[in-house]
Amino acid sequence: MMNFVFYNPVKIYFGKGQIAKISNEIPKDATILMTYGGGSIFTNGVYEQVKSALADYKLLEFGGIEPNPRYETLIKALPIIKENHVNFILAVGGGSVIDGTKFISVASFYEGDPWDFLSKGVRAQKALPIGVVLTLPATGSEMNAGAVISREATKEKRSFFSPLVFPRFSVTDPSVTFSLPPRQVANGIVDAFIHTMEQYLTYPVNAPIQDRMSESILITLMEEGPKAIVKPNDYDTRANIMWSATMALNGLIACGVPTDWATHGIGHELTALHGLDHGLTLAIVYPGVMKVMQNEKREKILQYAERVLKITQGTENERIDKAILKTDEFFRSLGMKTRLSENGIGQDTIETIVERFTKPQIVRLGENQSITPEKVRQILIERL
Amino acid sequence: MMNFVFYNPVKIYFGKGQIAKISNEIPKDATILMTYGGGSIFTNGVYEQVKSALADYKLLEFGGIEPNPRYETLIKALPIIKENHVNFILAVGGGSVIDGTKFISVASFYEGDPWDFLSKGVRAQKALPIGVVLTLPATGSEMNAGAVISREATKEKRSFFSPLVFPRFSVTDPSVTFSLPPRQVANGIVDAFIHTMEQYLTYPVNAPIQDRMSESILITLMEEGPKAIVKPNDYDTRANIMWSATMALNGLIACGVPTDWATHGIGHELTALHGLDHGLTLAIVYPGVMKVMQNEKREKILQYAERVLKITQGTENERIDKAILKTDEFFRSLGMKTRLSENGIGQDTIETIVERFTKPQIVRLGENQSITPEKVRQILIERL
Repeated sequence: MMNFVFYNPVKIYFGKGQIAKISNEIPKDATILMTYGGGSIFTNGVYEQVKSALADYKLLEFGGIEPNPRYETLIKALPIIKENHVNFILAVGGGSVIDGTKFISVASFYEGDPWDFLSKGVRAQKALPIGVVLTLPATGSEMNAGAVISREATKEKRSFFSPLVFPRFSVTDPSVTFSLPPRQVANGIVDAFIHTMEQYLTYPVNAPIQDRMSESILITLMEEGPKAIVKPNDYDTRANIMWSATMALNGLIACGVPTDWATHGIGHELTALHGLDHGLTLAIVYPGVMKVMQNEKREKILQYAERVLKITQGTENERIDKAILKTDEFFRSLGMKTRLSENGIGQDTIETIVERFTKPQIVRLGENQSITPEKVRQILIERL
Repeated sequence: MMNFVFYNPVKIYFGKGQIAKISNEIPKDATILMTYGGGSIFTNGVYEQVKSALADYKLLEFGGIEPNPRYETLIKALPIIKENHVNFILAVGGGSVIDGTKFISVASFYEGDPWDFLSKGVRAQKALPIGVVLTLPATGSEMNAGAVISREATKEKRSFFSPLVFPRFSVTDPSVTFSLPPRQVANGIVDAFIHTMEQYLTYPVNAPIQDRMSESILITLMEEGPKAIVKPNDYDTRANIMWSATMALNGLIACGVPTDWATHGIGHELTALHGLDHGLTLAIVYPGVMKVMQNEKREKILQYAERVLKITQGTENERIDKAILKTDEFFRSLGMKTRLSENGIGQDTIETIVERFTKPQIVRLGENQSITPEKVRQILIERL
């Protein structure tokens, strides 16, 4: 096991009816800015639950935060915060709303251009406290200190981390996810699954607890994921997916092990160039990473094949091929079209992406920083 | 899955050489009281490492905290704190030192008799900040907000909980555990194992992540435990046991599931009456709980048998019997004498303990509060 530091102070309220408790966690004299996205909270009852829980507060609203939340949108919240002396932000939505809210939180105290947090690695010194009401299990942002923000003007998508943006609390009520469209459910399941794989399928460092906890999440997502698509109102299924997604990226399974993140790196380019859903890009790319990087990942792929997929027959290479196939089949069982060609993407896009990874200053992807531009090409060609 | 609230703000520094980092976490102008136990820290190098890390601080010492830390000992720290304006306490030791330090932390601001926290359930309003350097993986106290304190004068052993006593940080360096006596290592492994079982082996509530995370800890302790006894200097073995023990009682595996704690309740009485090590009492009692409560625990015992012990052959009752036997064998493989008679304890002690559980105000033990005094008798008779 490698040395590590683990710290995660987010208070999780999990379950039915927990939205009613948020006033326990927000100072009585707070002026709250409630942030949200496209408005699904008006049809699934969440908006009413939040308003009711916060009836005694001064409550302002800032809606319209889009998927892949944009700098240009988010900075419009800053004058509202300043003029109204907002001192608490409540993010009501999925990962994009939470990530956007984290950016607003640090931007509201920053004198310069807050894009500096993303482009220059400026460390936040102060941030508005954040609470979360989660509506879409996927990114894990409700229990971590990271955020990914896009800038429309420059077509950039960047991330920042600050312990100041850990939410003070996050309410995760599985019943609010019943009404999600199947495509969003599938995206969320794949996002959580690949988050886990990025921290698990690397090379062994004798960390059996972390390995088995990752396998716990993977097996659960594989068992429960397809059920959520066909039985959207099953509470326990939704609950297990919701807790899986939170556990997949709260730092715990990364403790003491190497991490990969190549699939996220390559997938982000597919979103940037073709607007594909983040979850879908991961489902497209991951089997290619497994195939092309199978020698570096050999031991862990075989462990994954045996423990998660119960593949015990055949030579090592046969088991690896079968594991890749079954992983792809899992994504497809959720309704994903996991081939580039099925999404209208061809060789020309592959070359554009490879080109983006050839800049000398770019850190090579993968747990061993060994994914060269040529390997990126091979990975994507595998997925045509 | 049941509703739950999870909150754990302890920062964990895990690994070799991490003691040197504690000064990052303590304010530079702090006056620190370092608490410790019987003095093993003077022979295993930990005392020197701590002194060296804190060379620039005003550092006082309070040693002699015993196993099952006593009120009578702990209150002697209070005048030292007051006279020297101590504003940070660093616990250097195992669970007893940490638990005792948690008590000192809340007692130092309390006007009345601090035993009130244990006997009257008084809730602490203020506490001194605590840091931890862990030397014995066992109780999980380094990453939770509970403490068990004994009072010599009245032969009482009681617990209290307060979010104020979560350590600000805990350093867990596996290499400082190499020199532990095998008996303490075994006690720690059994303690962590039973902590996990108390939160796992109850009844199913469709919480597959939590179940599998518990199984992750159980399998790891069963694999690594015996190795630690025969190869005491194997870093990875010690690391895996140390992280298992922390994960076993930091609140995570209890999320959304029922919990038992009957074995701890009965085991405490064996310690109180005969001075048996806490871990040993758990190893004695637990197979009896499995046997006598097997109908209520049937589904989870069968799941444990299959997933943790790989028992797949035989009737349900045969698998249950085999699971109980193998659990007992695991404890014995660590050098434990798991029968009451092997520890000089007979029928008369059983009757004394049963008597203690007959008081009408006592809450019945077990996840269903169904362990009657007669069941306590049956459990202990099983273990004669």
